[in-house]
Amino acid sequence: MKTVKYTRLVLIVVYALSVSAPLNAQNSANEVIAPAQLNLMPIPASVRLQPGRLPITANFNVAVKNYADDRLRAGIFRMLTRLAGRTVFTLPPELAADESSATLVVQCERAGDVIPSLSENESYSLEVTDKQARLVAPTVVGALRGLETFLQLIQSDRDGYYLPGIRIQDQPRFPWRGLLIDVGRHYEPMEVLKRNLDAMAAVKLNVLHWHLTEDQGFRVESKKLPKLHTLGSDGLYYTQDQVREIINYARDRGIRVMPEFDIPGHSTSWLVGHPELGSAPGPYKIERAAGIFEPALDPTREQTYKFLEIFLGEMAALFPDAYMHIGGDENEGKQWDRNPQIQAFMKEKGIKDNHALQAYFNQRILKILQKNGKKMIGWEEILHPDLPKDAVIHSWRGAASLAEAARKGYHGILSAGYYIDLIYPASQHYLADPIPQDTTLTTEEQRFVLGGEATMWSEWVSPETIDSRIWPRTAAIAERLWSPRNVTDIEDMYRRLSVISRQLEEVGLTHEKNYGMLLRRLAASDNTGPLRTLASIVEPVKEYHRYQLRPQTMLSPLTGLVDTARPDSQTARQFAANVDAFLSDAPRFAVYRPNLERTLAEWLTASRELGPMIDRSAALQEARPLVGNLEDIGEAGLEAIAHLSAGDPVTVEWRDAQLAKLDEAAKPKAALEFVVITSVRKLVIAAAELPQLKATTPAEWKKRVTTMAGPSSPSKP
Amino acid sequence: MKTVKYTRLVLIVVYALSVSAPLNAQNSANEVIAPAQLNLMPIPASVRLQPGRLPITANFNVAVKNYADDRLRAGIFRMLTRLAGRTVFTLPPELAADESSATLVVQCERAGDVIPSLSENESYSLEVTDKQARLVAPTVVGALRGLETFLQLIQSDRDGYYLPGIRIQDQPRFPWRGLLIDVGRHYEPMEVLKRNLDAMAAVKLNVLHWHLTEDQGFRVESKKLPKLHTLGSDGLYYTQDQVREIINYARDRGIRVMPEFDIPGHSTSWLVGHPELGSAPGPYKIERAAGIFEPALDPTREQTYKFLEIFLGEMAALFPDAYMHIGGDENEGKQWDRNPQIQAFMKEKGIKDNHALQAYFNQRILKILQKNGKKMIGWEEILHPDLPKDAVIHSWRGAASLAEAARKGYHGILSAGYYIDLIYPASQHYLADPIPQDTTLTTEEQRFVLGGEATMWSEWVSPETIDSRIWPRTAAIAERLWSPRNVTDIEDMYRRLSVISRQLEEVGLTHEKNYGMLLRRLAASDNTGPLRTLASIVEPVKEYHRYQLRPQTMLSPLTGLVDTARPDSQTARQFAANVDAFLSDAPRFAVYRPNLERTLAEWLTASRELGPMIDRSAALQEARPLVGNLEDIGEAGLEAIAHLSAGDPVTVEWRDAQLAKLDEAAKPKAALEFVVITSVRKLVIAAAELPQLKATTPAEWKKRVTTMAGPSSPSKP
Repeated sequence: MKTVKYTRLVLIVVYALSVSAPLNAQNSANEVIAPAQLNLMPIPASVRLQPGRLPITANFNVAVKNYADDRLRAGIFRMLTRLAGRTVFTLPPELAADESSATLVVQCERAGDVIPSLSENESYSLEVTDKQARLVAPTVVGALRGLETFLQLIQSDRDGYYLPGIRIQDQPRFPWRGLLIDVGRHYEPMEVLKRNLDAMAAVKLNVLHWHLTEDQGFRVESKKLPKLHTLGSDGLYYTQDQVREIINYARDRGIRVMPEFDIPGHSTSWLVGHPELGSAPGPYKIERAAGIFEPALDPTREQTYKFLEIFLGEMAALFPDAYMHIGGDENEGKQWDRNPQIQAFMKEKGIKDNHALQAYFNQRILKILQKNGKKMIGWEEILHPDLPKDAVIHSWRGAASLAEAARKGYHGILSAGYYIDLIYPASQHYLADPIPQDTTLTTEEQRFVLGGEATMWSEWVSPETIDSRIWPRTAAIAERLWSPRNVTDIEDMYRRLSVISRQLEEVGLTHEKNYGMLLRRLAASDNTGPLRTLASIVEPVKEYHRYQLRPQTMLSPLTGLVDTARPDSQTARQFAANVDAFLSDAPRFAVYRPNLERTLAEWLTASRELGPMIDRSAALQEARPLVGNLEDIGEAGLEAIAHLSAGDPVTVEWRDAQLAKLDEAAKPKAALEFVVITSVRKLVIAAAELPQLKATTPAEWKKRVTTMAGPSSPSKP
Repeated sequence: MKTVKYTRLVLIVVYALSVSAPLNAQNSANEVIAPAQLNLMPIPASVRLQPGRLPITANFNVAVKNYADDRLRAGIFRMLTRLAGRTVFTLPPELAADESSATLVVQCERAGDVIPSLSENESYSLEVTDKQARLVAPTVVGALRGLETFLQLIQSDRDGYYLPGIRIQDQPRFPWRGLLIDVGRHYEPMEVLKRNLDAMAAVKLNVLHWHLTEDQGFRVESKKLPKLHTLGSDGLYYTQDQVREIINYARDRGIRVMPEFDIPGHSTSWLVGHPELGSAPGPYKIERAAGIFEPALDPTREQTYKFLEIFLGEMAALFPDAYMHIGGDENEGKQWDRNPQIQAFMKEKGIKDNHALQAYFNQRILKILQKNGKKMIGWEEILHPDLPKDAVIHSWRGAASLAEAARKGYHGILSAGYYIDLIYPASQHYLADPIPQDTTLTTEEQRFVLGGEATMWSEWVSPETIDSRIWPRTAAIAERLWSPRNVTDIEDMYRRLSVISRQLEEVGLTHEKNYGMLLRRLAASDNTGPLRTLASIVEPVKEYHRYQLRPQTMLSPLTGLVDTARPDSQTARQFAANVDAFLSDAPRFAVYRPNLERTLAEWLTASRELGPMIDRSAALQEARPLVGNLEDIGEAGLEAIAHLSAGDPVTVEWRDAQLAKLDEAAKPKAALEFVVITSVRKLVIAAAELPQLKATTPAEWKKRVTTMAGPSSPSKP
């Protein structure tokens, strides 16, 4: 058996081989682990199943070999705690003294970088046999990555817990795999950051991009310029002790913490305490709305740079990471346009436009960073002919800027495609690749692409909801950034994602458990059934339409149905797959019929129960228009299925009436949209096309099924 | 309408009056608020409904009058955040400038005690009319108590949120209403303490009894004697900064923080770093088991008192509360018996037994506390003729010691009856009264009874499960300690408790939401249905039997089915009520029949699905014996109902076979016990007694129903 690149198709081949081999000989045939049942995420660079089964019992223990330090030991004990939690075993409280008798040997060669860095070696290998598991890594961080893989490999059957025989050789495809958390628009308590760091480590992400300043809040203590945080934060900021606590917590998990101080735009909160830095006289107040705002630092005054020298110098000492993110995005320069002094300065210096003025600003900032030993990174707007080559470009508006930067010899990372705040499904993020298959970059140019970052912009997330906006979708992005490019099977990704999502609860994430809590609060009842049914097939509107459709401020409660409903509806995904299978089963239309009928009937029932529920809980009043839609959707689907099953075509009038109702239902309400309409539309159209079906080959019909509903799915961009 | 003492019966009378009055005139008849639908807990001293309805809209705002400080304003904004979260309103971000236009006026007279104290005035009055709500309180703490009542009064109907017209005059029955949290056996992170302080405030508890030291852990930083926490805590301790943070957090909510340093027993963790204080030579290790252990401080050596002078002096400065709890419980003196020096000392001083030796110890400790301006409190064992009268007795083995102390002129508080770690239902704790109706204490003596404390001993709680062991049951205890003695309607208590329990989620409690998470982890699946069914009708074994039945250590995972199942099964309570109603409906046996059949059938179905689930998740293997029991219970119930409905008596053989199966099912497994067996037993016995029924009057039969299953309910002590 040869080492295989781990895609699902190949795995099925390996599985077939392993059964005939026969591997896992000690199991009876129906207990053989199919490799496709492995729940690894991100999928390692190379995986080879081999005979063997390593039982995990209450005697499970770990020995360390060669190099071990506190960070490694703490990582091992975190792994043991999660293993114990899952298995309910009381494990030995100490590391094993004797390597030969240990269940798992962790062989590490050195500490690795004192401060987690871009060049850290994160590779590891893991071999599991009947007798022992052996994790070998050059660095502690590599070992930590391997321990997460180890936890993901644990299986259970009638005989208890075990690991399958396996050989894994793993290293990341990209060295920069990040998650941006915007704590400016909404502050997040320490425990939110910590549990998200644990979750990041679980899927091998290695950069927390800490977006610390925004128009809506300045979230880090400055001892040298305390008006920044005292006047710019509503008291919601991280003390420097807390910053160090987060940095240490992240370092323990092999995660870099890169701060962002977004300038010259996105800086209203700076100006509350320091209006003298603004490009208009002020006074300034903390911004409460969502959007793009005019306030910008004045790049023409020396005072601005003196101030930033002090502040960025203080932050450079606080944050050990090699990089400092200076933002640089979305400055429209309106304040600059209106300020005669700034206009005079530009004329005098021959600065021809605002982009050039910002480039001038960036040059000055770059010098401050260089003086403090930091490398500069900024959003793609900073790309400018004058930009020195050691700056890093953070691409967010599209992958083109990343390629352009690489061609020009700039390092870059990708966030376009990873904007998890836009509420797109994981499948879509999953296919965004920093270096896509059809890249036009040369191999040399490709080296400039360092990786990417998911971005949790926080206009509409609270400590109660943020986990559900980040997870589990970000695990799919983590896989994109770690695993080989050819790992692209969406169905298999979702299968593994649902397992990993549950395991992420072990580190305290609330993405699943707060769902029920939010439903109970909304319903003001423990009996949330019908509301849950509705919430399971709607999603918040995509992109940034929520603000227009349902205006709120940064001080508003994020406890509405739009906050409760989650991205990437699993129910809708399953329903769509079942509808396609049902329609492809022409002309019998039997496959999944009971399932679909039950589901649609449940929607109908829920639509009838929701009215009284809304009467009892006024927080749900905005959901009332959705209830009629839900009824229409359920009825249309059930009637279509009845016609299809009976082989009894519907009239054009019926079809048009149903489609009109579905069009109406497709319109967002309460900033929510149904994500099952495309599927119901298919049912309706198919019922109308029954006569044509007779003249169609099965293959043609199947093809027709996929395009039946037209291009107007509301959940696609 | 007169002011009524608030019991449910009286309320029904008031309701009748209010309908005929008619009150709430602007509502249609079916929307009139029945007072019995008020969800207040604890019930105020006096409540009077009056005409009126105060709408709560997005314009809701609060004005303060007379005295206001940061503590009051913070309390108001916490209330507003919860109100906004519940209603999804974006409320005005500032307090109202103008009293006359404010929805709620908070009129407070003074700050009250700088440090929350036993003598704090916690009273308030609240009047709600059509136009305004007015909360009047002499102190800020009184106002905070009233704000919680205000939140509990919010109702919703088709016209939106509102408060009913009402006049409340309220003050606590007892000044000492506490919750002990044992962080010695299991450490609890800061956020666990904080959310529990918020929950305490929500039900008007006012003392956090912080049990900081135990055999299994020394949890507070001592800067003067750092070996105590560094060697005695596994690194899991509170820094002094964190202690201050908790004290301030509690003070903001009008809650005292009383530390306990349990000596001379329960002190193993002290001796790890300081074996020289022990009554045996050591060395000592942190205790990992549950139970009572021998290590005790040596009360005969001056060194011990010098040490305690330093340590208790440091703690006296750290904790501002007037009281310091010195434990004093469960010292069996075995180390003392075996130590010749101690024996010689006793002989020399004429100390006749260990109890007297401990009294000598307590006298010495008392002097240290007095020197530091603290009053001493200890568990009831400290009661001794030599004990000075300003010590407080903490009664835990039975209410008798409280009465004895009061008769002797000692102040005391009650925890006997409030041991929530014993897993008894709320109904039982609810009826334990510090001064019961039939008290033999004189009015004068009764004044010595200060109140009580629920005790969360932490042998078997983790940060994931502790909330579900404290809440919601502790809210019933809070009511006992605040509300008038005659508030004792258990059914109404449970009705309100389920509402309050849901509202407690607003402060972040996990008692409800972690249930699903624990089930998912155990099942290793999102599909937890059958496991949830099983978990809903079992409870952890009562008292301290868990340790014998399912031994674990303090380092064991608390993630098993016994940790997932919760006390006080609501399903079982409802089932029992329905069975009683069904049986009382003789000879028709129609009431609740479909409901009971559905429930029992669900148990049967679950019993069939659980086997394969256990096969897939080995953590559930210990639950396997419960599955057969579940099947037996379901079958016995269904068959009995079939016979009863058909009027077809069963044979004695059938009855005996079923009862034998139920007896078998009643035996604890995996430290869990079914709590529906009494009810199913009733069904079986009733089916056998059908012939007798004909010769019985309905009244006799009803009486017979209640006693049918005999005294052997496993959930009663």
